[in-house]
Order: sequence, then C-alpha cells, then structure tokens
Amino acid sequence: MLKLLSPKFEKLISSLKQLPGVGKKTAQRMAVYLLEKDQASGHSIIRSLSEALASIKYCQGCNVLCENDMCNICNSTRRNKIQLCVVENMSDMIAIESTNIYRGRYFILHGKISPLDGVGPEELNLPMLKRIVKASKVKEVIMALGPSIEGETTVHFISNMLKNFDCKITRIGFGVPFGGEIEYLDQKTLTHALEGRISF
Amino acid sequence: MLKLLSPKFEKLISSLKQLPGVGKKTAQRMAVYLLEKDQASGHSIIRSLSEALASIKYCQGCNVLCENDMCNICNSTRRNKIQLCVVENMSDMIAIESTNIYRGRYFILHGKISPLDGVGPEELNLPMLKRIVKASKVKEVIMALGPSIEGETTVHFISNMLKNFDCKITRIGFGVPFGGEIEYLDQKTLTHALEGRISF
Repeated sequence: MLKLLSPKFEKLISSLKQLPGVGKKTAQRMAVYLLEKDQASGHSIIRSLSEALASIKYCQGCNVLCENDMCNICNSTRRNKIQLCVVENMSDMIAIESTNIYRGRYFILHGKISPLDGVGPEELNLPMLKRIVKASKVKEVIMALGPSIEGETTVHFISNMLKNFDCKITRIGFGVPFGGEIEYLDQKTLTHALEGRISF
Repeated sequence: MLKLLSPKFEKLISSLKQLPGVGKKTAQRMAVYLLEKDQASGHSIIRSLSEALASIKYCQGCNVLCENDMCNICNSTRRNKIQLCVVENMSDMIAIESTNIYRGRYFILHGKISPLDGVGPEELNLPMLKRIVKASKVKEVIMALGPSIEGETTVHFISNMLKNFDCKITRIGFGVPFGGEIEYLDQKTLTHALEGRISF
C-alpha cells in the first residue's frame, strides 16, 4: 500500500500518542492541527517543554517537581511543618491544594508500592520520608492515597515504618462523594462509607 | 494565594492546553506525565515536532502537508489524474484514503468558505484548484465536504467556478451511516437520506 503520510509526520503522530489518554486518532488530529492550523502553538510547546525538561528537578523537601532546590510550599513560612500529607503524585497534590483547606506540607511518593510492577519501598523514596518526619518533628502524617490494594499496602508499609515516631498517622476519609446518589454507588464505596462512619 | 506550581510548569501546561480537545485538567495531567513519568517521551515530542515543523511544506499537486515538493499520492503512477477528490483538511483525506476504494488524487482546501470567519475563496487556494483541473484534464471532481452551511457554500462556489470545464462535479452521499438506527437519527440526516435516495 502507498505510504500516505510523510515519515516525519508519522514520527510526530507516534510521539504524540505517548501522551496519556491520547490514541492514534487524537494524535493524528493533534499533529494535523499543529502543522496545518497553528504552528505557533507547536513552537510554544517545543519551547516550554524543552525549558521545563531542562530545568525541572525534585524539591528536596517534598519531592515535588520544581525549578529550585525547594518548592514554594516547602519554602513558605505560612505552612506548618508538623503536618505532612503523603500523596501518590503531583496531580493529587494539586487537587488537595485546590481545596484551600490544608496548611501543612506534602510528600510526593511518585507511585505506590506494587510488587507486580516491580515498585517496592525503595522506589518511593521512603527513607527520605522517614528523615523528614524525624528532622521536622512531624506530628501528623496524613495518608492521602486512593482506596486500592496498592494504596492500602503503601499506607500499611508507611505506618509500620513510622510506628516508633511520636507522630499520628491518619488517612483521608473514603465514602460517598459530594452529590453522590447512594442507590447508584458501587459496593466498595458503600462498604468504605459504612466502615468509616463517624458519630453525629 | 501561594503559587503552587513553578512558572515553567505553568507555561508548559498553558501551551499543551492549545492542543485540540485538551482542557486545563488534561494539560496538567500531560505535563505531570511528561516531567514526572516519561521524560523520554517529552524529548521525543520535542524532536519530532521540531523536525516536522522545520521540514514540512505543502505539496504542489494537492496542498497536503509533506516533506517534498510532491506528496506520495501525487507522485504515484498508480493513481489516476482524472479524478480529484476535494476535502476540507488532511484528516478527512486520511479517512477517505483508509477506505482503500479511491484511486484518484486529492485537493486539500485547508478550510471552508465561511464569511463569518473571514475565509473567502482566496484563502482556500481555489485558483490552484482551477489550474490543476485544467492542466491535468480532470474528468471528475468529487466534493467530499461535510453537510454544513459552509460546506454547501464551498461546493456551490467550486462547481460554479468549474462550470466551463469539461468535468463532472459530484458530491459524496449523505444519509444514514452504516449501522445507524433510523429511529435515533436526527431530522437533517434523515432529510438528506430521503433526498439522496437512489433507485434499487
């Protein structure tokens, strides 16, 4: 069959396909858009991605990606050091931060313990977490991991690792989401909601 | 409020947001993915996009984006020159080509006549289309534009422009899509289907 697209076009499509949530059709549409309709956006993606990849590193206080040794939150004097919220990744941190309710610091695991995927405690920088809890005299570690087997394993491992420290380990609440219709919720969510009931 | 993300990170998110179908949340997820999980993909996007933007130009035969003066289809001796399929953009051409049924050539308008958006006949390279129809002695121009007001306007304009040439102007069929349930189809589609009925 005749090769319809030019090799460079094909290469662009296959590299865009590596983005999360982007399949072949979407990648093709993006490539056509960037080359046909809006080359300025193409150049701006190249520029911003190159700059970000070149300068971004991990914050030494919480493992978040940032441009300096310490991120804005770890550097801020208005955030308390005695609360530490452990999250799986940056997107989760951004979501929690958007509630505007939490005033402590974060620790980003960049993953969850998952033996099947070859992710053990070493891959998650847990020694660093232990060091921070000790050095900052953290009083509460809030585990903000989603309710999955890997999440539970990670929570258990961390609470075990920190059991000799004078710090409380808490877990975010699982249950019925805001606006959730009880009749349509799945069994697991309702089980969590029942188990996590609090007195009124 | 504390600036949560580093400026370069924010810049990357806002440039990814310019991709078609990508909103703020998706752009954020893509940025986190490219910087946190898969920097190799980030570098491959930079490389392939730079190369494509630097070397891609318009085919002189059909206006498709390609790396050479002529695209593979226009260069092919196995495609006839007497049929010309007019499409709005490259994605439409790829879709038609994937049917493996059409053996002629294409002409890409890169748009539709749309006075409201300031797109007139001049913006669509229609003089080039006229030149090609004349030079290649095209016998059939197949208008493969979607059924919209702009599409209809464009079809009318082109068929008017070519009326003095010895070439047939046809339009792809509109009607019930394969597998479509008649009871769920919209009025316009059914109107097209009824108007476009053929004898059995």
